[in-house]
Amino acid sequence: MRVLLCGRFGAEEELRWRAALAQACPEVTWVTADAPRAAVDAAVVANPPPGALSGWCGLKLIQSLWAGVDRLLEDPELPEGVPIARMVDPAMTAAMAETALWATLALQRGFFTYARQQRLSQWRVQAQRRAGEFPILVLGLGEMGSATAERLAAQGYPVTAWHSSDARAGRRAPRGVVATAGRAALQVALGRAQAVVNLLPLTPSTSGLLDRRFFAALPPDAGIVNLARGAHLVEGDLLEALDSGAVGHAVLDVFHVEPLPADHPFWSHPRVTLLPHAAALTDPRSAAVVVADNLRRLRAGEPLLHVVDRRRGY
Amino acid sequence: MRVLLCGRFGAEEELRWRAALAQACPEVTWVTADAPRAAVDAAVVANPPPGALSGWCGLKLIQSLWAGVDRLLEDPELPEGVPIARMVDPAMTAAMAETALWATLALQRGFFTYARQQRLSQWRVQAQRRAGEFPILVLGLGEMGSATAERLAAQGYPVTAWHSSDARAGRRAPRGVVATAGRAALQVALGRAQAVVNLLPLTPSTSGLLDRRFFAALPPDAGIVNLARGAHLVEGDLLEALDSGAVGHAVLDVFHVEPLPADHPFWSHPRVTLLPHAAALTDPRSAAVVVADNLRRLRAGEPLLHVVDRRRGY
Repeated sequence: MRVLLCGRFGAEEELRWRAALAQACPEVTWVTADAPRAAVDAAVVANPPPGALSGWCGLKLIQSLWAGVDRLLEDPELPEGVPIARMVDPAMTAAMAETALWATLALQRGFFTYARQQRLSQWRVQAQRRAGEFPILVLGLGEMGSATAERLAAQGYPVTAWHSSDARAGRRAPRGVVATAGRAALQVALGRAQAVVNLLPLTPSTSGLLDRRFFAALPPDAGIVNLARGAHLVEGDLLEALDSGAVGHAVLDVFHVEPLPADHPFWSHPRVTLLPHAAALTDPRSAAVVVADNLRRLRAGEPLLHVVDRRRGY
Repeated sequence: MRVLLCGRFGAEEELRWRAALAQACPEVTWVTADAPRAAVDAAVVANPPPGALSGWCGLKLIQSLWAGVDRLLEDPELPEGVPIARMVDPAMTAAMAETALWATLALQRGFFTYARQQRLSQWRVQAQRRAGEFPILVLGLGEMGSATAERLAAQGYPVTAWHSSDARAGRRAPRGVVATAGRAALQVALGRAQAVVNLLPLTPSTSGLLDRRFFAALPPDAGIVNLARGAHLVEGDLLEALDSGAVGHAVLDVFHVEPLPADHPFWSHPRVTLLPHAAALTDPRSAAVVVADNLRRLRAGEPLLHVVDRRRGY
């Protein structure tokens, strides 16, 4: 089986991926992107440059190593009719829930406020809220939204999980979580949320959702945790909301432009905590096993896992 | 029933305590510390000034509102022969476990490193470690140590909990936690710990435990989380260990002198995260219920809860 491996990795990162994939898929002959374009059975990709997937004949599966495929789908030369699979890596899902939990604990207990106070050598105890008094709204009921909502609920937070489409309203809610859907329900949920954790896929209908109107629907001093995509957030509207006190603190992992430009006001904003798109990384050790499973399914003619609906965008 | 209420509170804090105690103990007549010293059945105290408890006749219980009684026991005029009860507040125990979990997640996932990077406008992804690859050592197997160890183990961390006295070696370990005791076992546990969470009581045998020798036994770059008492830690030794890289980061809630003096090097140290003795506050709503239960036991002649061994110190 010949498989194209095509991604934009750091040197050390590429070594880790090659080692993990070689171990999980011993029957595969790996073809690199700089080889002459010829027949391959599948492509394993990580944000390939536009056009990188055209001209390979026989391609029957494009397997992403990343969970989000919005950039991949923007490639105008993306071969049509070839199934695209997203990565659903259990280690990445766990890492996302950890990041959301860390951010939520810090918002609930004032740890970001204490960090601000430390910079001013200020000793002042903040009111201690219980988890049960700190309702959280999780946006997104996919793999990561569901796992995160369930993990937060297990810590004692009242958790509502919201999906952008009414079509999912009947979907089984994660344990301990109230699931809801549609724009009207969102307004109600926002009015009660002390913190919002965004884990939506990026689609035309979710782009720009976190805007002025969204922030205005929150109780004062609420926390925003954006772990999904930069384009979900209207950055100028968030800055205004932070400065007016409508939003108390924001934890941001993703941005319109990444790496975030050095002169961006988020870097030095006292009410913004930044992560460098590191809330959850795909772990080569477990992701390579997922790749191997889909390649085996392809050979055996079995149904492929985590295939993307191109029209829906995820 | 006449009960002395004697503590050093802020004005707003005192109001919250008075309201919660009045509601939980409707049969009590509360006596203030500035009243003429006369007969009272019990005293409810929160770090009372030295001598404040002498001269009250009929005193049959000293109930602390705080979990740590080391300062109370230092009072040379503390009436002898009167039982002293510590506060064991379920909300405070939960808050302590939350703080330990927040600090542990941040150490495991590099969130303190990202905060340092943010101050330098530096975009750099750190290696992502799984919880199962991040062994934690919890010092102390009392109420708070046990609850914290169990909560961390439930998140997937390999947790060892250590007690300073061999006498407790046979004590039931919290679920999912390896319990150990004695100095020899401590050396072994330190050699494997990526993070240490201190929740020991302060006694002559635990004072100064976190010193140069202790830090030298850790693997490089380990995290220190001191949530117990400032005197457990030799501050100069920690600063040296941070500067040499023997310790990667420290989260400190308690200090030799509190509030921490404005010129103390911890305030601005890039590898120290400070909390103003706020890792876990007693919650008047639940603590007042605990007080009411012990006062009821006193009236009914039933065994009192959480009585301190004055010789042992906790």
